[in-house]
Amino acid sequence: MQRVEVAWSKMPKGALGQSGDSIELVERPLGGLTLILADGQGSGPAARRISRMVAMRAVQLIADGSRDGAVARAVQDMLYTAREGRVTATLALLSVDWHTRTLVIARNAPSPVLCRQEEHVFRLEGGAEVIGTYRKTRPAMTELEALPGSLLLTCSDGLLHAGRRYGTPFDWTAWEERFLSISVDELGQFVDELMDHALDLERGRPTDDISIMALGLKGDDESARRSLYASIPY
Amino acid sequence: MQRVEVAWSKMPKGALGQSGDSIELVERPLGGLTLILADGQGSGPAARRISRMVAMRAVQLIADGSRDGAVARAVQDMLYTAREGRVTATLALLSVDWHTRTLVIARNAPSPVLCRQEEHVFRLEGGAEVIGTYRKTRPAMTELEALPGSLLLTCSDGLLHAGRRYGTPFDWTAWEERFLSISVDELGQFVDELMDHALDLERGRPTDDISIMALGLKGDDESARRSLYASIPY
Repeated sequence: MQRVEVAWSKMPKGALGQSGDSIELVERPLGGLTLILADGQGSGPAARRISRMVAMRAVQLIADGSRDGAVARAVQDMLYTAREGRVTATLALLSVDWHTRTLVIARNAPSPVLCRQEEHVFRLEGGAEVIGTYRKTRPAMTELEALPGSLLLTCSDGLLHAGRRYGTPFDWTAWEERFLSISVDELGQFVDELMDHALDLERGRPTDDISIMALGLKGDDESARRSLYASIPY
Repeated sequence: MQRVEVAWSKMPKGALGQSGDSIELVERPLGGLTLILADGQGSGPAARRISRMVAMRAVQLIADGSRDGAVARAVQDMLYTAREGRVTATLALLSVDWHTRTLVIARNAPSPVLCRQEEHVFRLEGGAEVIGTYRKTRPAMTELEALPGSLLLTCSDGLLHAGRRYGTPFDWTAWEERFLSISVDELGQFVDELMDHALDLERGRPTDDISIMALGLKGDDESARRSLYASIPY
């Protein structure tokens, strides 16, 4: 048996109020789970409404059993129709699909997806259009074997731009090296440390919403126990 | 500001395969969050389909902004209609509602809800019918002030019956004393220890699905950071 470890961390722009990003975790009815990250245009409550609408529609479709590529297309068409092509959002889906025994990555976002498989770390990036403004927007799809030890991580663009205004841009290379060496159990801690680092680069007050989500596969696990912890301020 | 701490733990019958219980965590669009526990009649995949249908419908309704009492009624009517009164399920909703600044508890389940408020621990129990078999089933509703330090915890009946077949029944009184003394930060650990204890009473192989979910309110928190960790075997 394998165990899926999931972690996410979110901080709003200015370290105050509500993030315009939405992250959702949903189970796949045929086995596995999907992490959804939607970043609505702008920030604050208006952005939040858009990202919630996008993310919750994706939750419903995944829970109904829809495939990830169909979900990304349906959600794009919904946003395009509802807001007449005038509002954009980004959407990233990271799935563990036990029906196909693959990791499925659907991207309509400029942020890279960091992947670890078999002692290699690589980045998926480029070519993914945001949703909401064109009639025929499609997701960039990637499918990888669900190998034990695999890790996937992505973020909103707030992380990519962290530190830029202070001349101390985010250094992916150093974090990729750490990503290569951590155990799957350390994924939650890794996400927390990545957020700590981004907040340091932004001197505690991010210029944009920062969100990070990740999942990992751990082999040789015989326990059927599931658990979840969350901490949410209001 | 207050911080909501959330924790849940699930173990399937026999410590193998999939639990028939479903737990979902969903944000309330007007502020706050809701934990949903549904226990489908029987165990294994058939029970799981029922509890998933019930829990995911509740997720949708909460995400749309429906009030908890309306959600419980709508979900009961859906199950009654879909399965013609022949299948039962239990449903418990634990909410932190920032719009009303209250804790809202909706119960259609025989399991008690353990509550802690202002140095007192009490149990909500009795009078809650399960959903699915009668046309006019209603939830037992309780509303409490959202005071810092408050805790809510409930479980599926697998916990209530733990240890019975070995003549070592579950002792609520001892756990209520600990529930009174823990800090809100220790809620996740408390849930884990409660599950460990239940599994010990069942000698590692529960006779029924065991699920525990809890939430707590922590006062004087100034960070806007949100985080989540989950661990799920397949």
